Amino acid sequence: MSDVKKVVLAYSGGLDTSVIVKWLQETYGCEVVTFTADIGQGEEVEPARTKAQALGVKEIYIEDLREEFVRDYVYPMFRANTIYEGEYLLGTSIARPLIARRLIEIANDTGADAISHGATGKGNDQVRFELGAYALKPGVKVIAPWREWDLNSREKLMAYCEQHEIPVDFSTKKKKSPYSMDANLLHISYEGGNLEDPWAEAEEDMWRWSVSPEAAPEQPTYVELTYEQGDIVAIDGQPMKPHEVLEKLNKLGGDNGIGRLDIVENRYVGMKSRGCYETPGGTIMLRAHRAIESLTLDREEAHLKDELMPKYAEVIYNGYWWSPERRMLQAAIDETQKSVNGVVRMKLYKGSATVVGRKSEQSLFDESIATFEDDAGAYDQKDAEGFIKLNALRLRIAAGKGRKQD
Amino acid sequence: MSDVKKVVLAYSGGLDTSVIVKWLQETYGCEVVTFTADIGQGEEVEPARTKAQALGVKEIYIEDLREEFVRDYVYPMFRANTIYEGEYLLGTSIARPLIARRLIEIANDTGADAISHGATGKGNDQVRFELGAYALKPGVKVIAPWREWDLNSREKLMAYCEQHEIPVDFSTKKKKSPYSMDANLLHISYEGGNLEDPWAEAEEDMWRWSVSPEAAPEQPTYVELTYEQGDIVAIDGQPMKPHEVLEKLNKLGGDNGIGRLDIVENRYVGMKSRGCYETPGGTIMLRAHRAIESLTLDREEAHLKDELMPKYAEVIYNGYWWSPERRMLQAAIDETQKSVNGVVRMKLYKGSATVVGRKSEQSLFDESIATFEDDAGAYDQKDAEGFIKLNALRLRIAAGKGRKQD
Amino acid sequence: MSDVKKVVLAYSGGLDTSVIVKWLQETYGCEVVTFTADIGQGEEVEPARTKAQALGVKEIYIEDLREEFVRDYVYPMFRANTIYEGEYLLGTSIARPLIARRLIEIANDTGADAISHGATGKGNDQVRFELGAYALKPGVKVIAPWREWDLNSREKLMAYCEQHEIPVDFSTKKKKSPYSMDANLLHISYEGGNLEDPWAEAEEDMWRWSVSPEAAPEQPTYVELTYEQGDIVAIDGQPMKPHEVLEKLNKLGGDNGIGRLDIVENRYVGMKSRGCYETPGGTIMLRAHRAIESLTLDREEAHLKDELMPKYAEVIYNGYWWSPERRMLQAAIDETQKSVNGVVRMKLYKGSATVVGRKSEQSLFDESIATFEDDAGAYDQKDAEGFIKLNALRLRIAAGKGRKQD
Amino acid sequence: MSDVKKVVLAYSGGLDTSVIVKWLQETYGCEVVTFTADIGQGEEVEPARTKAQALGVKEIYIEDLREEFVRDYVYPMFRANTIYEGEYLLGTSIARPLIARRLIEIANDTGADAISHGATGKGNDQVRFELGAYALKPGVKVIAPWREWDLNSREKLMAYCEQHEIPVDFSTKKKKSPYSMDANLLHISYEGGNLEDPWAEAEEDMWRWSVSPEAAPEQPTYVELTYEQGDIVAIDGQPMKPHEVLEKLNKLGGDNGIGRLDIVENRYVGMKSRGCYETPGGTIMLRAHRAIESLTLDREEAHLKDELMPKYAEVIYNGYWWSPERRMLQAAIDETQKSVNGVVRMKLYKGSATVVGRKSEQSLFDESIATFEDDAGAYDQKDAEGFIKLNALRLRIAAGKGRKQD
Repeated sequence: MSDVKKVVLAYSGGLDTSVIVKWLQETYGCEVVTFTADIGQGEEVEPARTKAQALGVKEIYIEDLREEFVRDYVYPMFRANTIYEGEYLLGTSIARPLIARRLIEIANDTGADAISHGATGKGNDQVRFELGAYALKPGVKVIAPWREWDLNSREKLMAYCEQHEIPVDFSTKKKKSPYSMDANLLHISYEGGNLEDPWAEAEEDMWRWSVSPEAAPEQPTYVELTYEQGDIVAIDGQPMKPHEVLEKLNKLGGDNGIGRLDIVENRYVGMKSRGCYETPGGTIMLRAHRAIESLTLDREEAHLKDELMPKYAEVIYNGYWWSPERRMLQAAIDETQKSVNGVVRMKLYKGSATVVGRKSEQSLFDESIATFEDDAGAYDQKDAEGFIKLNALRLRIAAGKGRKQD
Repeated sequence: MSDVKKVVLAYSGGLDTSVIVKWLQETYGCEVVTFTADIGQGEEVEPARTKAQALGVKEIYIEDLREEFVRDYVYPMFRANTIYEGEYLLGTSIARPLIARRLIEIANDTGADAISHGATGKGNDQVRFELGAYALKPGVKVIAPWREWDLNSREKLMAYCEQHEIPVDFSTKKKKSPYSMDANLLHISYEGGNLEDPWAEAEEDMWRWSVSPEAAPEQPTYVELTYEQGDIVAIDGQPMKPHEVLEKLNKLGGDNGIGRLDIVENRYVGMKSRGCYETPGGTIMLRAHRAIESLTLDREEAHLKDELMPKYAEVIYNGYWWSPERRMLQAAIDETQKSVNGVVRMKLYKGSATVVGRKSEQSLFDESIATFEDDAGAYDQKDAEGFIKLNALRLRIAAGKGRKQD
Repeated sequence: MSDVKKVVLAYSGGLDTSVIVKWLQETYGCEVVTFTADIGQGEEVEPARTKAQALGVKEIYIEDLREEFVRDYVYPMFRANTIYEGEYLLGTSIARPLIARRLIEIANDTGADAISHGATGKGNDQVRFELGAYALKPGVKVIAPWREWDLNSREKLMAYCEQHEIPVDFSTKKKKSPYSMDANLLHISYEGGNLEDPWAEAEEDMWRWSVSPEAAPEQPTYVELTYEQGDIVAIDGQPMKPHEVLEKLNKLGGDNGIGRLDIVENRYVGMKSRGCYETPGGTIMLRAHRAIESLTLDREEAHLKDELMPKYAEVIYNGYWWSPERRMLQAAIDETQKSVNGVVRMKLYKGSATVVGRKSEQSLFDESIATFEDDAGAYDQKDAEGFIKLNALRLRIAAGKGRKQD
Repeated sequence: MSDVKKVVLAYSGGLDTSVIVKWLQETYGCEVVTFTADIGQGEEVEPARTKAQALGVKEIYIEDLREEFVRDYVYPMFRANTIYEGEYLLGTSIARPLIARRLIEIANDTGADAISHGATGKGNDQVRFELGAYALKPGVKVIAPWREWDLNSREKLMAYCEQHEIPVDFSTKKKKSPYSMDANLLHISYEGGNLEDPWAEAEEDMWRWSVSPEAAPEQPTYVELTYEQGDIVAIDGQPMKPHEVLEKLNKLGGDNGIGRLDIVENRYVGMKSRGCYETPGGTIMLRAHRAIESLTLDREEAHLKDELMPKYAEVIYNGYWWSPERRMLQAAIDETQKSVNGVVRMKLYKGSATVVGRKSEQSLFDESIATFEDDAGAYDQKDAEGFIKLNALRLRIAAGKGRKQD
């Protein structure tokens, strides 16, 4: 194991990754570079510096990636109305490619030959980190301590800390939670604990980002979202950067009890797992984006997008952001968004985000044709007969030849 | 126009179709058979008998098709988690094939050579009725008065009534509504009026089947749905027939402000239209069905279902229920539902239908593998390395040969 | 019918479209502009000028569009390995959007308010011309004489000619043929005559562009095709323009009996029809393109292309070249072609075009990994175990829980 | 390694698997059961008995599975017109699920707790065997010697034989071939040797099942294939069992130089490999099946089949025959084949299999409508106008609102 000289670690500053720093140094006898990013997880990242220094780390990267995260990953994904398995907004999945890319870029900058992460061997995140790393630097060595070491219980981890004088006071907050959690600007997730029984309802005090619908205000909140080329650029007429948009919508959504989700999902590694998610802003964005598209997209491109979406969601969920198939799908999706401009008006109320209005200068809604009133000849109802007759022709021929139709 | 001898009309008992009875008799000099069905639209159908008799109709069919409607059309559609354009639950679309089939069967029984309906030339329903009719009886003559006559305003219709002594007191209720409405056990729809401006919020007094979320009870309602082969067979342990299930869920959903929808959709005839829908029971069913599938479906069949769903929805929306492509898709869908058994627990509260638990004897969720705790060797984390390495191989080779990956 | 002032006609110079010139002048009392294009149909286009003049046409457009046709339509289509219904290379379909575009551009240039064509009311070409025209100039008036007039037999046409002093000596060659034919650089097609019986073998003397395999040379011909970004840019090392490439391959293919096809296809208007086609160059191009892609495309983008291809083929066949869905698909396809560079070596022999070699500087084929010999550690066979184990996990869990697997 | 008591080995009787018998006995100290099947590979299977006995095997299974192979695997696959990556007829892939199933059934019959095979760690076959095994018997132990041992060269294998007194005279024929080959009734494959250079043309003496097109007869052979529900049941009117059909077509095809293929394909394990294949009968069957479908399938079900086919091919290629997704796709495919009955006439000549006629009592080809002659009103050409107008409506609205269409 002596062939690794320097490794870049995705470092949260928490207990687990602190142990990993030490373990890498010991096991591989290599230098460790730490990389800590603010992607909106809601915790200070700067304290990671002192902790890393205390562990003897010399090269420490601490970065605010919130804008880049939303602009280059979350926004492109939402252009596709992406949902995994009909429910999940991919909050964890979409953060991994950015981390993978920065890990590799830092490896290149610091001359590191390996990267490492704190994801377990049962989950999707290891796959996402590593597929990204291999795609961007094919010769990189990946070290996944959870798949290698035998520190597979909290007791062993604590013993390791004691033995190696790693201060255990950090991350006490997390220690108290019975759930495995992950957060970024798009969502916070919960797994484990009593959630491992899919019949058990999540406990109210688990949720952190939203009030319960019951506790939300009695009065609805209305909000107007302005779209340019499929992306939100302003809220209530106020121009904002992508991550500001999401922060604002998280606040609005969370205050109104919006975005809680409780599902059983299929992991890429082959098992089902139960997870709870809070995605307040994303839940609003998904419905609003469909609404602005309903006015501005052509029917056939909209339907084709819907047919491609499950595949696109799967690609992201499974960790193939940095792949030719993702780029190919993105090219198709982005091609459709040029005219997706306008404003959507949403009503937020006790858990629901409802579209109540939409308008656009690029609207393809034609009142003169759609009207129930006299349309002054804009549409010739007689055309419908030929339309139906020829669409029915293949069915009529088949039935005429005795082919069973029911 | 003398070649039509007898025509079967889809007759609601309302003003429009009453005018059509007379118009058909006059214009085609033919006998009219009326067909009125209770598919859960919430109005008495029996009064249609007297009205038809008053118009000189001799063969009058009045039928309760609620059970058949839900069992043979709504339920199979929900097995696919069917949604059109990401939002619409196809409440109108799914009722048409049943009406088309009965029209043709009655035509066969009564020796009629034509069928007729009251749908306009701008909408999807004419297509759905007629595609079904042609598929089931290829030589049938279809008469669509709205595409033929010049009674294209309410004034002209009223004048026609007066001239032909058609009593206009019926359907006074509908006359007052500014909306074009359609209802069956699955939903009620609203179009026209001020909805023709997609920016205008629907007025509260438009909605008929649900209270507003604001007016819904302060306490949530919990309900347990039992599935067999993808269909709900019991509510809170109480066995029910399909239409009883939907009636019950409509009541529960409506009482809790669930199932309102306000969208712009793409019609098959080529225009966008704005519609509002109330689908209380269906909204609950959709989420619940996904939840029971999340436990009982294999990942790949679930994903394949999701990829096929938009096509299946389009087939139904466009009116191709009676087609080989619908049967082909249905065969694939139904093949997956054999083990979709179990119970889903839902929370209904002020507009939201939320899954809070699911269980099944056919569950594929394996706690011993999914657990965050020690799994006693049920899953070997080291397998993940090979899994990732080979999945990454194509990406690594490409990157190694200088292929750009970002 | 007096509201048409000027109409641009797709004019071949043949009998039918000459009659149409006169019929338009008479029926609509409007000026006729003729448009005749050389798209490689193998007939002189210049004679159309005199004929048009003789019919009183003042604005006559005669253009050589061969290069544009292959570069902007045929080549993009072949990037997708496009085949309709598993067999048909879309030779007729792909020429229509170009004609439609020029008709509209000429209408704009000449101030015409209508366009016209000589396609019948039973075929796909009317749809393709008209969808293109409406998409590019939504207010245009389209006149389709074959759907309007009663000159629906050759006798009536001849009588019309005599009556209006249209010289009938032109197109005598076509008159003798029992087949309806259409040709451009990509193919020549045959319909009608004894082909209307799908069991009857096409007669040898029907085929015009290729010798029979039996009559082809006893020695194979080898040819090397150089690709850049998915398009052929050189043959046997000789740089050529797109239309020169196709002309050359038509010659090589035709000489070797390559590219004959005899199928029953499904028309967009709802009927089946039997057609025979000669596509010598296209048949070579299709196989060669797949071969260069086999070296240079990533697996997943290649598979995704294959999944999208039938839809793309349908879009073109049905006449939706000028549509958002075609642009969306094209964006995805073109995204994949950046590295599709290299050389393919083909063997042409008595009806077969066989790939015998392919090479590329962007090749993703890695001999060091693929080899059956010792690979010096490039690939760790032990990775396969984890790969298989995790891919099998969902199946094992299901089987372990008693789920039937066969 | 002492926990394996009995292992069922897929035993060819050749050198490699004979070594495996001994190696399993030695390494695992377990009893070995051999299973040798005739699936049409063209070699006697009975000699495997003596060889196995000589190696001390007590339970020896030798079976003729040709009929089952073609009836239950090859035929269902051909109903989908299955091709992998546009070229490959899946000859190797489709034989694996049958072998996997028999291995597991024999394991169950003999009380074995493990299965073993002679596939390498680089290929697809290991995946196919093992996915099948795990799906059918989730607790089975799989032993893949090529991934475990260090006998990774022919020299080491020979040394092992000498050391363990394994007679090396068998399989001398194969030893001489520079290619890795695999054969069954559907095809014979070649990999390795000079094929590892994708630019190198395969040598003529490599091919074993077909004459070269150059050496094929100067006179074409005609053959008529009778279909019932998508499967061939008779050749030239002579009823035959499935495997007899394929044997006969292999003979006819091979004699006429039909079915050679030379491709670079993407393996599931992530690398590209070059392979040559001879699939004489399959090549004829593929074209013939499309031809009978062209007459008897509805357009939309045919198109949907084409859209699903690449996925279905991938499922089989990757080894997921025994999976819910394959069953789901098969249900859809088989649903379409009920009326796929009739006769196809093929011309076989020097490498080409050409369809020259097709007929069916379930034909949906309607001469009275398709005809270029007077159709006596079967089709109203005026219907086409409405059909086009409404299909164009969305494009016209978009263009009318200034949306760019080119």
